[in-house]
Amino acid sequence: MIYLDNAATSFPKPPEVYRSVYSTMTKICANPGRSGHKMSLAAGRVVYAAREMCCRYFHCGDPLSFVFCSNCTDALNLGIKGILKPRSHVVSTFLEHNSVLRVLKKLEAERYITLTLVYPQENGVVSAASIAKAVKSSTRLVVLTHCSNLTGAIQPVYEVGAMLKKRGIPFLIDAAQSAGILTLDLVKLEADLIAFPGHKGLYGPQGTGGLYIRPGLMLKTLKEGGTGTASDSFFQPMETPERYESGTLNTPGLAGLYAGLRFVMDHQSEILPHERELSTRLITGLKNMKDVSVYSPEDPNFRSGVVAFNLQGRDSGEVADALNDRGIAVRAGLHCAPLAHKYLGTLQQGAIRASFGFFNTAEDVDALLFALCAVQKEP
Amino acid sequence: MIYLDNAATSFPKPPEVYRSVYSTMTKICANPGRSGHKMSLAAGRVVYAAREMCCRYFHCGDPLSFVFCSNCTDALNLGIKGILKPRSHVVSTFLEHNSVLRVLKKLEAERYITLTLVYPQENGVVSAASIAKAVKSSTRLVVLTHCSNLTGAIQPVYEVGAMLKKRGIPFLIDAAQSAGILTLDLVKLEADLIAFPGHKGLYGPQGTGGLYIRPGLMLKTLKEGGTGTASDSFFQPMETPERYESGTLNTPGLAGLYAGLRFVMDHQSEILPHERELSTRLITGLKNMKDVSVYSPEDPNFRSGVVAFNLQGRDSGEVADALNDRGIAVRAGLHCAPLAHKYLGTLQQGAIRASFGFFNTAEDVDALLFALCAVQKEP
Repeated sequence: MIYLDNAATSFPKPPEVYRSVYSTMTKICANPGRSGHKMSLAAGRVVYAAREMCCRYFHCGDPLSFVFCSNCTDALNLGIKGILKPRSHVVSTFLEHNSVLRVLKKLEAERYITLTLVYPQENGVVSAASIAKAVKSSTRLVVLTHCSNLTGAIQPVYEVGAMLKKRGIPFLIDAAQSAGILTLDLVKLEADLIAFPGHKGLYGPQGTGGLYIRPGLMLKTLKEGGTGTASDSFFQPMETPERYESGTLNTPGLAGLYAGLRFVMDHQSEILPHERELSTRLITGLKNMKDVSVYSPEDPNFRSGVVAFNLQGRDSGEVADALNDRGIAVRAGLHCAPLAHKYLGTLQQGAIRASFGFFNTAEDVDALLFALCAVQKEP
Repeated sequence: MIYLDNAATSFPKPPEVYRSVYSTMTKICANPGRSGHKMSLAAGRVVYAAREMCCRYFHCGDPLSFVFCSNCTDALNLGIKGILKPRSHVVSTFLEHNSVLRVLKKLEAERYITLTLVYPQENGVVSAASIAKAVKSSTRLVVLTHCSNLTGAIQPVYEVGAMLKKRGIPFLIDAAQSAGILTLDLVKLEADLIAFPGHKGLYGPQGTGGLYIRPGLMLKTLKEGGTGTASDSFFQPMETPERYESGTLNTPGLAGLYAGLRFVMDHQSEILPHERELSTRLITGLKNMKDVSVYSPEDPNFRSGVVAFNLQGRDSGEVADALNDRGIAVRAGLHCAPLAHKYLGTLQQGAIRASFGFFNTAEDVDALLFALCAVQKEP
């Protein structure tokens, strides 16, 4: 199988990720942060090492500002609901995933918030100016994806962060598609909250993810429970990360995330150029074909390793099935981003998404192009 | 290390659990339920097989009534907050873990609910009659642990379920300490919701757990996001389990949970007798020592494989540290169950908890008793 669905879950992982999960499970996997015996402390160190590695990746000085979640959706829910108060105004965009849209739309339907969704420019990028224009005095949060999960179009999170910082408005970045691929440098990036998955660009296992919370920022909790601290209190502790991490953490998963983050740090200068080279190769090939629509930005500087396209007049799911029969894994359909499809005019047809990872090659791209030509010739 | 902390996380797991996690991670771990390609479908089948195995364990006909969560705390939060409405009255008990108490106490502090906590009888068991007495016409939920995480005392969930069924009151069982050990038979058990961890008695990996939701019961969601279904809708689907499972599931973890459940099914007749034998051996040994307080029920029929005790006049944490130095892992302190400690009078001292798993032996118990005698003789 040629796997081109890395934007959903990266595969394969670096071998050290598998080894790290296995070795943690088999050797030391007691409950982290609960008991005081050697194995529990060893499990606790695994979790802390993963926090430290997050610090290295995000250029952050405080390991305790990373809260571990079960996936990016979990982290986004905590970030959004944790910071909002009744009658808050929220600004977000047409490009967001349902992990943002459904959360905001539910709060809007409950009349808890009011919501403004900003439309992208022609190149699929939302301008910082249009977000600035949407912001009001009652705006309590701006949520912006760093990179569209549908088209791979990179959004101006640095510019938006600087603008919001001046206006004192909290900023949540959805790094679902960027963590591990694009630079998320908290020295330069004015972000209050960054939600990220472990199992995509960071090459960790499924069941991991996290939320960076700017030190000093206190959120409401979405879940309460045992934290292994202040156990005689009926209420959650105030400290990050314990406040938000009730229940047993996924220690083997976090051991894998540590290894994935380490891999990303070791290959940081290669990952984005490699993925861009592949996406550029695919887009060039697609443009040489007849009757193909490409939805990702042509300028590689505005694009990651994700390419969305369609064979004109062909249902995206049907094309993906034909590719699957030829041993190529892509995703088709709506990609949990209904407004991005509305913007592209692909709500009916859906879109085919090929998303690259570090282990894909130019031959994978050529195999996809070859298969697409064959599929196009079929009735 | 002699590991006697299975009530926190079972260790070791059966080898097939490790193999199942590893093999899923390395071979098929695409995103389940998202794309249509072979690997994604294979990952989806892993998840579905885990649901089916839950059915076998819980004697339930509908695999889709099991919602996968990241741990039991996650499941309890969904069950409790999902079913409650403003001004609901809730009945629970002094024996509950903070994963229940902190959730309920927060809702009570917000004046969202009113709360009655029932006191146990002298043997550490809450009677069905005392719960029946606490129930009012406004009672919308009863939450009861199946087995105290501190003392291992088994609670009358079958009797309570039958009583509540007659009165039409929803019943949530916290099976954190019972799933995999005690019988949870939905043919006889009148439960609307059962929260369970994957990583304790079911021998799955950390990062797994679940909530059984009685077919026909619809909960409010605690998180929203992409479900891979009805992606053009801004709102969560109505169907269980998708409605409650936004974001990517922990496929390798669920592969491990499947293997753990299978192991439990294969050894179902041995697990409880074995754990009871060990806890009886420990209690008998402790009673033969001087100046020891035992908090677990003496009658083995009321007890699982958990034993709580103290060396009189000695801080529980200090004793646990001394045991750790001798290669024995137990837990000490407050065990996230403040009211259970209040009931036992151990809020200051905490308690030592030895909790057995399938892989413990009589020699492990004897080693603990031997070490305790040695610790007791130290100044």
